[in-house]
Amino acid sequence: MKQTFCSIITIGDELLIGQTIDTNSAWIAQQLNPLGIPVRRRVAVGDVKADIIDAINQERKNADILIITGGLGPTSDDITKPLLTEYFNTRLIENEAVRRHVVSFFEKRKRPMLDVNLQQALVPESCTVLFNDAGTAPGMLFEDQGQVIISLPGVPNEMQFLISAHVLPYLKKNYITPNFIHRTLITVGEGESYIANRLQSFEQTLPAEIKLAYLPKINIVKLRLTGTDIDENTVEKYFIELKNELSDIMYTDTDAELEQVLGQLLIDKNKTISVAESCTGGHIAGRITSVKGASAYFKGGLVPYSIEIKESVLGVNSDTIQQLGVVSEHTVLEMAEKCCLLFKSDYALSISGYLEKNDHGNEVWIGVSDGVHSEAKKIIAPFDREKNTTLVVNTALNVLRLWILRS
Amino acid sequence: MKQTFCSIITIGDELLIGQTIDTNSAWIAQQLNPLGIPVRRRVAVGDVKADIIDAINQERKNADILIITGGLGPTSDDITKPLLTEYFNTRLIENEAVRRHVVSFFEKRKRPMLDVNLQQALVPESCTVLFNDAGTAPGMLFEDQGQVIISLPGVPNEMQFLISAHVLPYLKKNYITPNFIHRTLITVGEGESYIANRLQSFEQTLPAEIKLAYLPKINIVKLRLTGTDIDENTVEKYFIELKNELSDIMYTDTDAELEQVLGQLLIDKNKTISVAESCTGGHIAGRITSVKGASAYFKGGLVPYSIEIKESVLGVNSDTIQQLGVVSEHTVLEMAEKCCLLFKSDYALSISGYLEKNDHGNEVWIGVSDGVHSEAKKIIAPFDREKNTTLVVNTALNVLRLWILRS
Repeated sequence: MKQTFCSIITIGDELLIGQTIDTNSAWIAQQLNPLGIPVRRRVAVGDVKADIIDAINQERKNADILIITGGLGPTSDDITKPLLTEYFNTRLIENEAVRRHVVSFFEKRKRPMLDVNLQQALVPESCTVLFNDAGTAPGMLFEDQGQVIISLPGVPNEMQFLISAHVLPYLKKNYITPNFIHRTLITVGEGESYIANRLQSFEQTLPAEIKLAYLPKINIVKLRLTGTDIDENTVEKYFIELKNELSDIMYTDTDAELEQVLGQLLIDKNKTISVAESCTGGHIAGRITSVKGASAYFKGGLVPYSIEIKESVLGVNSDTIQQLGVVSEHTVLEMAEKCCLLFKSDYALSISGYLEKNDHGNEVWIGVSDGVHSEAKKIIAPFDREKNTTLVVNTALNVLRLWILRS
Repeated sequence: MKQTFCSIITIGDELLIGQTIDTNSAWIAQQLNPLGIPVRRRVAVGDVKADIIDAINQERKNADILIITGGLGPTSDDITKPLLTEYFNTRLIENEAVRRHVVSFFEKRKRPMLDVNLQQALVPESCTVLFNDAGTAPGMLFEDQGQVIISLPGVPNEMQFLISAHVLPYLKKNYITPNFIHRTLITVGEGESYIANRLQSFEQTLPAEIKLAYLPKINIVKLRLTGTDIDENTVEKYFIELKNELSDIMYTDTDAELEQVLGQLLIDKNKTISVAESCTGGHIAGRITSVKGASAYFKGGLVPYSIEIKESVLGVNSDTIQQLGVVSEHTVLEMAEKCCLLFKSDYALSISGYLEKNDHGNEVWIGVSDGVHSEAKKIIAPFDREKNTTLVVNTALNVLRLWILRS
């Protein structure tokens, strides 16, 4: 079977001058991997006609499928659509369905529609139009000499909608790809190399048709077992073994986020939670409430960013803070207990620490309580502010999850 | 004068399968812009010899300077050094200075040195070695047929060290480049096409040497004016005109985030703020505290996710909620007032609404108060949960900023 390759071309001066970091390409690659269509090259070019055409011609030598993102906005530096119209020797025609969609898009939002917006309804005659429910610029799919050239907007959520709703179904239908079986589990609390070390003998037992991939994030490692042209039961057998190997650090054997697993646990146990987070500044509450339906178990959160608020609103004893320190085991324990009381929740999580190394170090304390019993854990935050925030949020959500499982 | 172009080639399977997001390219481009050396193309290829050589040959047709990152580590999938040695028809020789550096690198860290580490001291004979104080893999600079090919490690801090310490000085010495001038301003509250429409006549007055780019995010549009080989005063003149055209929606004439501008305003006015946010679930507090030093003006935040907490902790009158609705002008006004009192802050922001369309609609109310006077604004949240969160957070931060500016 001939291997199908994809090239991704991203268009936009903002990518070349370094103003925008390209996250689209990685996302697209992640969607194509399970289909067995590897991305062979990724190319970024500016809003320059000759450079875009060169890139298309060059990538057509490297790949069967070209995915082009960017340059479809309504402004004058967006040249992809006229360029592709010329490149494929076709003409722009008005698409009535896109026109109605654009008109209703602006009507729904009660915002004035401009002539430039209506131009989104003009599409190259020879393309298949990919309707964009997430915005106004439609995607375009051209079939030419056995190759497929797909043009999508660069706005991430619009691109993602079009890939999921139109491009993936098209590729699944039109390309015979090897039969992939994926099984995913996710761990929290240990690094990639530590896990790789634990799995040395397991990896040696894997048949050639099954591959193990490590997809590390901060404090989180996703492990994906991929079977290629092999029966499902065999993959399942190895997946169960893998789960057994990592049972102490695995939080899910699906592709769920930590906050989703925590939410389901709370729904199953019919319990409620609250959060008092200082240095994480609202990010834990933000992650918890990113799950639809979180109001069933999340009573609320407090960000007591100053000592004054830790005392006045949360009710932490000022002696505790003065004598033992605002970043200390005793303070987070008391924060968690008082948080349970304030929000009348079954469990509470508390955070106090330093997200950037300073004269006091870079410790972060995590507390958890059911109002009667409490427990605290200290971690070191060794990265920059943003990365440390993610580290602390992931660790804290897991501390709370484990506490609830044990109680 | 002939324009000098750069191409960036990043090497690594992890980039193509979407495991790593390429932040190196953007950083390199940002360093080259002030030198007037535009990055014309960026290409990512996997750890495949033929693909890397193809990419080098191809990019040499597009650019005078090639910067290659990745594939210089000590493991077997790192093939850049032997590949370049073969490509430039040279041989590996031991570099004594690199050898001493590698040995002392491991001594200082008290870590065992392996044979593979010592291989870092082998360098192609025909290259200029770029000493790597930040790691063990040296950079390599080849001059060939009037072009420069530079190979650097992919580890961000090592790459950054080598660019700053060796590559930029080399380029400054060896290339006379055009003079680019960038000016950036950022707007909030209006879409790209609305702004483009307002700027139609302004854009027509721009000389050919000055280009205007639109970089839209949710509810935020960055506008960048770029002058090429034109004097600074002329660019400045047009930038001032642009600022005048958009003065009602511009929040900064630098490259700052909304929360940074808000923070600076609060520091300048010596005022404090607090937040009571329901549906945004901690994301506003999270954005405010992402700015280092936010503790100088941010007293704290409350996420009163349930009605019970809006009443018991925040102190909103239960009659207000029952008679006028939890998502209503009166409720957010009272939330903002009570938030000022609870946190003893000069100003407070409040949010109550629906981030996903339901039987009650998809309205979000934003309130702002100084404890005495209050104001509320209603917006519609037309997108998905995540995008709506960003829309509401951006709008709310700007509502607060404008309120403080007026008070």
